Amino acid sequence: MKQPSKKVSKVVVRRLPRYYRYLADLKSDGVERISSMELAKKMNVTASQIRQDFNCFGGFGQQGYGYNVEQLYLSIGDILGLNEGHKTVIIGAGNLGHAIANYHGFEKRGFTLVGIFDSNKAIIGSKINGITVKHIDEMEKEFKTLAPDIAILTVPKSAAQEVAERVCSLGVRGIWNFSHKELSVPAGVAIENVHLSDSLMTLSHAICGK
Amino acid sequence: MKQPSKKVSKVVVRRLPRYYRYLADLKSDGVERISSMELAKKMNVTASQIRQDFNCFGGFGQQGYGYNVEQLYLSIGDILGLNEGHKTVIIGAGNLGHAIANYHGFEKRGFTLVGIFDSNKAIIGSKINGITVKHIDEMEKEFKTLAPDIAILTVPKSAAQEVAERVCSLGVRGIWNFSHKELSVPAGVAIENVHLSDSLMTLSHAICGK
Repeated sequence: MKQPSKKVSKVVVRRLPRYYRYLADLKSDGVERISSMELAKKMNVTASQIRQDFNCFGGFGQQGYGYNVEQLYLSIGDILGLNEGHKTVIIGAGNLGHAIANYHGFEKRGFTLVGIFDSNKAIIGSKINGITVKHIDEMEKEFKTLAPDIAILTVPKSAAQEVAERVCSLGVRGIWNFSHKELSVPAGVAIENVHLSDSLMTLSHAICGK
Repeated sequence: MKQPSKKVSKVVVRRLPRYYRYLADLKSDGVERISSMELAKKMNVTASQIRQDFNCFGGFGQQGYGYNVEQLYLSIGDILGLNEGHKTVIIGAGNLGHAIANYHGFEKRGFTLVGIFDSNKAIIGSKINGITVKHIDEMEKEFKTLAPDIAILTVPKSAAQEVAERVCSLGVRGIWNFSHKELSVPAGVAIENVHLSDSLMTLSHAICGK
């Protein structure tokens, strides 16, 4: 296999998680190899796009054989930084924090939840998915042993910027932000915003927009 | 104001919800007009992109005046199909269904939750955000009066396709799909998928990907 000669473009990176999901399904179905034509049909994209995308990072196909599913899965996981694993904490144990804590699909992708924090005394000490909810003021102490690299922010908009600054100062390298607030963080910290209402508005446009 | 001469491109449509959110904030801060330069600075995009995007649907700016915030907000809402309002139902009242039912931000965008359905007898009859959870087998009867146009699918992957077919046969025009299953639906029904794990994998790439 050729080594990738340069960083993969953002547009291609945005498509990799979907390839990764399909390859995970193929793997669990016991499929060992697949052609770009077959994969394209399953994913409802063109075979040419698949070949171009995979060529961006060296290309994994062999003429007349297709792609080795396991190999491709591992390579895409490597590009996405999934293979070494991530430790995550959830800040804000409301309904959405609960839902994320209880979803087991993230573990399969290498994300291990190691801590949950909230400021609501009524739920401090309760367990969610086997993890005891701690007070947000214990973050400074707890992060020393937990050493999370990703903080999942499910706090209200009004608290988001302050919490973001605190987790950044504690060494978090990425924030998965559900707080409806666009955050300012130090250089070197990555932010991925989930704006659910944007997605719903896009659906509205598809139904009856102009 | 000029009338839009053609449908707005998908790329621009994807950006409209973010403009809409910023305009909503400006409106609630009492701002009546704003220049493309000021808006660009706030949104961390170029003024030229803003002018180009707004020109796609006729352009709302006036030289030396800028944009009328209220007018622009209403026009973008109109393009997004938000101004006439939408009636939504949630199918699947687990943690994520609860979180969505309890989030009040969607109402502000014109989405009114009118029903919640589940198959778990333990929660049928309980109330979430003032709405009684009904059994999924009551959908056929209830939809006649509720007449929802959007179904929010927060059911397990295994149930998703069957539920999608049922809500489509009952007249739903759009599905907001959180089920981790890519759905097949009749032509004319719009689907907006929320793949949270794709977003988390993208964050992983930003932190330590290749």
